[in-house]
Amino acid sequence: MTYAAPVNDMVETIRSAAGFEQAVADGVYGDLSLDLVASVLEEAGRFASERIAPLNRVGDEIGSRWSDGVVTTPPGWKETYRDWTAAGWNALPAPEQWGGQGLPAIVQAACAEMWNASAMSFALAPLLSAGAVEALIAHGSEELKQTYLAKLVAGEWTGTMNLTEPQAGSDLAALRTKAVPNGDGSYRITGQKIFITYGEHDMADNIVHLVLARLPDAPAGTRGISLFLAPKFIPDANGNPGQRNDVRCASIEHKLGIHGSPTCVMVYGDEGGATGWLIGEENRGLNCMFTMMNAARLAVGLQGVAIADRAYQQALAYAHERRQGRANGAPAGEMSPIIQHPNIQRKLLTMKALAAAARAICYRTAAALDRAHLAADPAERARGAAHASLLTPVAKAWSTDIGVEAASIGVQIHGGMGFIEETGAAQHLRDARIAPIYEGTNGIQAIDLVTRKLPMNGGAVAQAAIAAMRQTATQAANAQVSAGAAFGDAGARLRDAAESLDRATAFLLQQQAGNNPDAALAVATPYLRLFGIAEGLDALLNIALAAARAIEAGDANPAHASRIQIARFFASNIAPEAQALEQIVLRGGDAVLDAQDALVA
Amino acid sequence: MTYAAPVNDMVETIRSAAGFEQAVADGVYGDLSLDLVASVLEEAGRFASERIAPLNRVGDEIGSRWSDGVVTTPPGWKETYRDWTAAGWNALPAPEQWGGQGLPAIVQAACAEMWNASAMSFALAPLLSAGAVEALIAHGSEELKQTYLAKLVAGEWTGTMNLTEPQAGSDLAALRTKAVPNGDGSYRITGQKIFITYGEHDMADNIVHLVLARLPDAPAGTRGISLFLAPKFIPDANGNPGQRNDVRCASIEHKLGIHGSPTCVMVYGDEGGATGWLIGEENRGLNCMFTMMNAARLAVGLQGVAIADRAYQQALAYAHERRQGRANGAPAGEMSPIIQHPNIQRKLLTMKALAAAARAICYRTAAALDRAHLAADPAERARGAAHASLLTPVAKAWSTDIGVEAASIGVQIHGGMGFIEETGAAQHLRDARIAPIYEGTNGIQAIDLVTRKLPMNGGAVAQAAIAAMRQTATQAANAQVSAGAAFGDAGARLRDAAESLDRATAFLLQQQAGNNPDAALAVATPYLRLFGIAEGLDALLNIALAAARAIEAGDANPAHASRIQIARFFASNIAPEAQALEQIVLRGGDAVLDAQDALVA
Repeated sequence: MTYAAPVNDMVETIRSAAGFEQAVADGVYGDLSLDLVASVLEEAGRFASERIAPLNRVGDEIGSRWSDGVVTTPPGWKETYRDWTAAGWNALPAPEQWGGQGLPAIVQAACAEMWNASAMSFALAPLLSAGAVEALIAHGSEELKQTYLAKLVAGEWTGTMNLTEPQAGSDLAALRTKAVPNGDGSYRITGQKIFITYGEHDMADNIVHLVLARLPDAPAGTRGISLFLAPKFIPDANGNPGQRNDVRCASIEHKLGIHGSPTCVMVYGDEGGATGWLIGEENRGLNCMFTMMNAARLAVGLQGVAIADRAYQQALAYAHERRQGRANGAPAGEMSPIIQHPNIQRKLLTMKALAAAARAICYRTAAALDRAHLAADPAERARGAAHASLLTPVAKAWSTDIGVEAASIGVQIHGGMGFIEETGAAQHLRDARIAPIYEGTNGIQAIDLVTRKLPMNGGAVAQAAIAAMRQTATQAANAQVSAGAAFGDAGARLRDAAESLDRATAFLLQQQAGNNPDAALAVATPYLRLFGIAEGLDALLNIALAAARAIEAGDANPAHASRIQIARFFASNIAPEAQALEQIVLRGGDAVLDAQDALVA
Repeated sequence: MTYAAPVNDMVETIRSAAGFEQAVADGVYGDLSLDLVASVLEEAGRFASERIAPLNRVGDEIGSRWSDGVVTTPPGWKETYRDWTAAGWNALPAPEQWGGQGLPAIVQAACAEMWNASAMSFALAPLLSAGAVEALIAHGSEELKQTYLAKLVAGEWTGTMNLTEPQAGSDLAALRTKAVPNGDGSYRITGQKIFITYGEHDMADNIVHLVLARLPDAPAGTRGISLFLAPKFIPDANGNPGQRNDVRCASIEHKLGIHGSPTCVMVYGDEGGATGWLIGEENRGLNCMFTMMNAARLAVGLQGVAIADRAYQQALAYAHERRQGRANGAPAGEMSPIIQHPNIQRKLLTMKALAAAARAICYRTAAALDRAHLAADPAERARGAAHASLLTPVAKAWSTDIGVEAASIGVQIHGGMGFIEETGAAQHLRDARIAPIYEGTNGIQAIDLVTRKLPMNGGAVAQAAIAAMRQTATQAANAQVSAGAAFGDAGARLRDAAESLDRATAFLLQQQAGNNPDAALAVATPYLRLFGIAEGLDALLNIALAAARAIEAGDANPAHASRIQIARFFASNIAPEAQALEQIVLRGGDAVLDAQDALVA
C-alpha cells in the first residue's frame, strides 16, 4: 500500500478543528452525522488507496501524450476515471437537483485530499470539472444548465477553466481572446489560451471549456472580460456530443511534475471561431470566476496537504525499514532503523505536524464555506462567508508552501535513494511544486490577504480569528492531561503567536490606511506565513484538547496521545518562527523598498 | 548570456569577508595579490560563461547515457572538458611539483563556484578528481604518486570516490567490498559500489577509482576499512593506459537532477577481481578519506552557492523582462515589469542575500583551510585548521539548503513558466536538490557540528567565532554612511543573532556534557541553521563595512550601496529567524524525543 487515507485523523480534524458539532447544532449540516461522514471517508479512502494510488507512478513515468491534437492519458487512467465516476465520487458535492449527492464542502475537502494524495495529476480533472459546475449553477442560463450540468456532475463530461494567455497570467486585464456575437445567442470565440489543465484528454466523451474573452467594444482591463462556455463537441438535439467545435489542443507542456495531467495550449478559431455561449452577464466574467475562486483555491490548498501527507507516509515507511548507524541505547553490533535517530524523528514530525496543521486550516475553510452556503441565519451566512474569505488565501498559500517543504524533507529522509526517480520521493517534490504557482500564485494570495481580506469589516474578521486563538491558548495553558502526553508550553506558544499576529495585523492595516501600500506589499508573504502558523497551531491545539478530554474519559486509543504530541511539537519547533515573522513584518519592509541598487540586471 | 560570473562580488568577498589582506599580512599567501586573484577569476568567469554555461541545458535534456557498460556524456561535454583542462583550470589548486599552479583554496573556491554555476553536472568530474589528487598527495606511496598524480592534475585522467554500497550510506561501518593481497604488492578487489559520480564516462583516457574495501580478517566496523586505488586501465610501463581492469559500470541511475553527471553502479570483480593498490596504511582508509573530506564538503557547499546565484541571475533577468500588473506609482495603462512589485523584490533580495551569505561562509572556510596549510606559524596553522573544521559543516549544509531554497524561489518568480522545463528554472531546483544529500547528508553535517566541532578545545573555537560576530556587530552599529545606503539596525540584529548562538551553543555543550546526547541531536539541524545565519550576517556586514569605507572615501561605484542594502536586507528579513531557532534549540528537543506515539508506521 503506497497510500492509506488517514480517515481517523480526518474525522477528528473535521470534528475538533473545523467545529463540526457546533455547525450541526447551528443547523448548518441538517441531519448529517459525523458517523455518516466517517463512513463516506472510509469508502473514499478505499477507492483512493486501492485504485488511484497505484496510478501515481505510471502517471509520472509515462505521462499524458500529445499527438496531432489528440491527448492520451497514462495507461489505466481512463478505466479508473470511469469506475470512479460510476461509483458517484464526482457527484459528491453537487446539488441533488443535478444528480449530485449534495454533501457539504467539508466532506468534499477530505475526499479531495484523498484523491490528490493518491494521484494529484489524476485528481486535477475533477477539480476543474467542479469549478465549471459551480460557475454554471451560479451564473448559467437555464438552457446551459439543462444541457451541461447533469453530464458534468456525473463526470461523463469534464470541465476546464481557460483564463491564462501568454501575456496574461496573474494580470487578467491583459486578455486578448475575442468573442463576437453570432446573432443567434451564440458567440464566435478566437484566441489562444495556455496552461489549460485537462484541456484535451481521452477520459470523457466531451470537454466543457469555460473561457474568458472580450466582446467587441468591451472596456479595456478586467471590466471588459466576459465568461463563455465552449464545448469540445456541441451537444446535439438529444444532448449527446455532436458537431466538433473549432477549439483544439495545439500542444501540451513538458513540465517539472504532474506529468499525468495534460497542460494544454488551446487554440480557438483555427477555422473561423469556436461556438460559445455567454455565462452570466456581459463584461462580468471576472465576477463569475470569483464565484468559484474560493472553492478552487481551497482545492489547491488541499493538494498541498495531500502531497505533504503522501510524502510523509512514504518517508515514515522508509525510516522504519532503512537501517544505518546505531542509535543511542540500541543494541551493540547492529544498525538501527533510521527512525530511531532523533534527527530523523525531527524531520518526520515536521512533515506530519505541517500536514496536520494545513489539513486543519483547509478543513476550517471548507466549514466556513458550508456555513456561508447552508446556515439558516443570514448573519451566520455572512459570518461564514467572511471567515472563508479570510482563510482562503492562507489555506491556498500556506498549505501549498508546506506541501513543497514536506516533500523536500521526504526526499532528504531517503538520502541518496531520494534522488533516484524510481523511489518516488522525488515525484512528490516535483508534483508539489506547481501548487504554489497556479490558481493565483502564493504571492498573489499574500497580497489578497493583506490588501483585501484584512481590511474586511474594518479588520473585525481578522480580529475574530485572533480572539479565537487567544481563547484556545488559555484552554491549552490550563489543560491537564492525566495520561498519555503533556502539552508542555504549547498554550503559551499559541498566545505568543496570536499576539505577534495581532501586532503584525495592526501594523499592516496602519500602513495601508496611511497610504503606504508598498510597505505592506513588501512583507505580505511573511505575514501570510505568520497567519498560517498561528491558525495552524490553534487548530492543532483544538484537536489536542479534544484528545486530552478523551484520555481523561478513559479512552486508551494511542492516537490521542499522538495528537497532543504533534500539537506540542508544532508549538515548540515550528511556532517560535511567529515572533521572527512579526519582526520581519514590522521592520523588514523598508529594507526591501530601499534596495534599489541591489536589483539592477 | 545565461550566466555571468559575479567577479567583483567574489573578489570583494575574498577581501572583506574572508580576510584576504590580513592573511597576506600574516604571510599565508606569499606574494599573491588581490589583483592577481581578480585576473584569474576574470579568465575563469569568461570560460565559465562562454563555454560551460551553454552546456547546462543539453546536459539536463540529453544527460549521460549508458549502453553496455559504456557511458556517453552529453554532446559537447568531451570537447569542452578537453579545452578546459588544456587551459589549465583542472591544475589550478594542485602543487607545482605535480604540474599544478599551486593557487590557494580561496581562489579554487571562487573558480569552483563558477564551474558549478555554469553547469553543476559538468563540474562534478573535476570535483571528484581533486579529491583523488588530495588523497594521493597526503597518503599515496611514491610509486602511486609518480604514476597517477601528473595525469590527474592535468585532467587527462579523472578520479572517483567509491564509498557507498547499498547497505552502507551514511554508515560506512557496514561496508562489504573486499580486497585480498595478490602477494606482489597489489590487491584483488571484489564488490559492488553505488552512487559513484563519473564512475564511467568518455571525457578522459583513464579513470582512477579510490575504493574503500575490507582486507581479510580486518576488524569489523570503520576500523577495518582500507583505501585502494583501482584504475580503469592499468598503466603500462610508459605510464599510458594499458590492460583493462576488472571494474565495470553496470548501470547509471535515473535521477531527479544533474542528468549530465553519470551516477554509476560499479562492479568490481566480475572476472575474479579488480587490481588495486593500497593508499596509506591498512585499516586506516577512513582516515585517508577524512583528509579530503573538508575540501570535498566545502566543494559541495559551493555548489549550493553556485546554483543559488545562477537561479538568481535567471530570475532577475526574467523579472526585468516580464510585465504583469501595474506597480504603485507606475504610469497608468501599461503593465509594469514584475521587478517593480515589492513582493517580487523581496523574493529576489532573498535569493541574492542568501547566495551572498553562503558564498561568504564558503570562502571563509577556504581561507581557513589556506591558513591551516600555508601559515608559517604552527599555532596559526592549528587555528586555521580548527576554524575550517568548525565552519565546514556549516558551509556544506547551510549553503546547500539555501541552494534549494533559492532555486525554488526562482521557480516561483517565473510563475507558470517556472514549471515548464524549457524555461530552465526548474532544472536548477532539480540539480540543487542533491547537494544537501551527498558528501554526508545535511543531517550528518548538523550532527558533526554539534557533537564533534562545538566541543573542540573546550568550546573555544566556537567562542572565537561568536566573539568575532560581536565585534562586527559593534562596528556595524557605529557605522555612519554619508552616502548611498544605511545600515538600519543591522548591527543590533547581528548582536541578537550572536547572543542567540552563544546561548544555544552553551545549551548544547551542557546537554552533551550531561550525558543527554539525544537532546542535542534532536535540535542539531536548527542549530546549524542558526549558526549559518549568524555567520552569514557577520560576513555580509564585514563586506558592507568595507563598502561604507569606500563610499566615505568618495568611491561612487553603486556596488557599494548595493552591498550595504543586501546586508541590511539579510539583517532585517532573514536574521530575525535566529531568535526563533534559539528557542527551538533550547526548548524544542523534548517534544521531539517525547513523540513516540506519533511516529508509528
